[in-house]
Amino acid sequence: MADHIVTAYDTELQTLGRKIAEMGGIAEKMLSDAMDALVALDVDLAQAVVASDPRLDVLQRDIESASIMTIARRQPMAVDLREIVAAIRVSGDLERVGDLAKNIAKRAVKIATEPRVPRAVIGLKHMNELAANQLKDVLDAYAERDVERAQAVWTRDSELDALEDSIFRDLLTFMMEDPRNISFCTHLLFCSKNIERVGDHATNIAETVFYLATGDTLPLDRPKLRSGGSLVPTPEAQDEP
Amino acid sequence: MADHIVTAYDTELQTLGRKIAEMGGIAEKMLSDAMDALVALDVDLAQAVVASDPRLDVLQRDIESASIMTIARRQPMAVDLREIVAAIRVSGDLERVGDLAKNIAKRAVKIATEPRVPRAVIGLKHMNELAANQLKDVLDAYAERDVERAQAVWTRDSELDALEDSIFRDLLTFMMEDPRNISFCTHLLFCSKNIERVGDHATNIAETVFYLATGDTLPLDRPKLRSGGSLVPTPEAQDEP
Repeated sequence: MADHIVTAYDTELQTLGRKIAEMGGIAEKMLSDAMDALVALDVDLAQAVVASDPRLDVLQRDIESASIMTIARRQPMAVDLREIVAAIRVSGDLERVGDLAKNIAKRAVKIATEPRVPRAVIGLKHMNELAANQLKDVLDAYAERDVERAQAVWTRDSELDALEDSIFRDLLTFMMEDPRNISFCTHLLFCSKNIERVGDHATNIAETVFYLATGDTLPLDRPKLRSGGSLVPTPEAQDEP
Repeated sequence: MADHIVTAYDTELQTLGRKIAEMGGIAEKMLSDAMDALVALDVDLAQAVVASDPRLDVLQRDIESASIMTIARRQPMAVDLREIVAAIRVSGDLERVGDLAKNIAKRAVKIATEPRVPRAVIGLKHMNELAANQLKDVLDAYAERDVERAQAVWTRDSELDALEDSIFRDLLTFMMEDPRNISFCTHLLFCSKNIERVGDHATNIAETVFYLATGDTLPLDRPKLRSGGSLVPTPEAQDEP
């Protein structure tokens, strides 16, 4: 009987893990497709990104309710409880990544008819690749319970923040050069903010991997690249600039 | 013994409720102070807003871990389980409202030395009052388990979306009028987005009140004011514009 209970419990955990892996795959694809749609101003691709989002929402609701039911039914303690809390948190982060990718896709549709500023998209594409790598790495770290890899993601987030700063300044320059660039570049500003927030969700997941492995939390202050390039902790990393 | 268990459980729920009320008070004050700081470009007040945020983060972590422990220990079912799930969700939304208010406060500091565009702030102030009212109403609805009041908040969110649209257009106009307005107005664009997202969190809480009372979810599509002014459901309400 004890065996049976353990097996059923393991099956529940495996199902949670499989659903999170599915969410991760969808979120990664949405993010990369959204950027492709933005670069090519490809309205069809953008609409496909928007259409993928409801699946992510359904998966997140499923994971949340299955997790809560498992906690209530099995009364797991210590690492088992952390497994389930981690599943709830990671699925919440992935659902938000999907929303952010969807928002980029919608902006691609909105600016498809605007005068283009091709130079302005280059930095954004680079930034998106960095964020996509962070997301991929941290999902691998989560799948393998690899704390070191998670911490590396957590530390690297400062690069994304620095890049957003520089893109912000570039976009302001393009807007000042020619008022016809303003509307286009304004949407790109929001896209850049969205990508930076994808990075924040990757660091949230890194923190969850750390919590899962150690039962502890990473310090509230994340390291942030200051202009000098040195890594110093600052409490302001979460929502800059 | 049964009595004792019930009482301890009730005490745990009351503690959760008290902590959420404290979070609500802090979040409301941060939001209103952040806007006052933005209107007056009051750097001291802005910094006070930033300084209130860690308390919100601590409360949210407390509520989350206390809730999970209560679920594991008491194995609540049906409405009791929903009470605790609702507490986790609402505290998550209030923590995010604090982040958004903090971000507005930080932007007030950043633009304190920019050339001002006083006209540009008027719409924002009005929008913030609307969002603050939504937040207050939905927290009252949560405290009183008042589903009708929660649904009214949920429906009214479309007004906030419409207002953001109009502020977005105004700010673009100010930027096109004079390139010196661009930096200032860009920060206001993000502030407007932040306020709109406070509204989204108010509607999330409204959905939680509905779930708490009925065990059901509101439809995924929120009503949205289209240009004609009629209320039509659209799946795009969550992250526009």
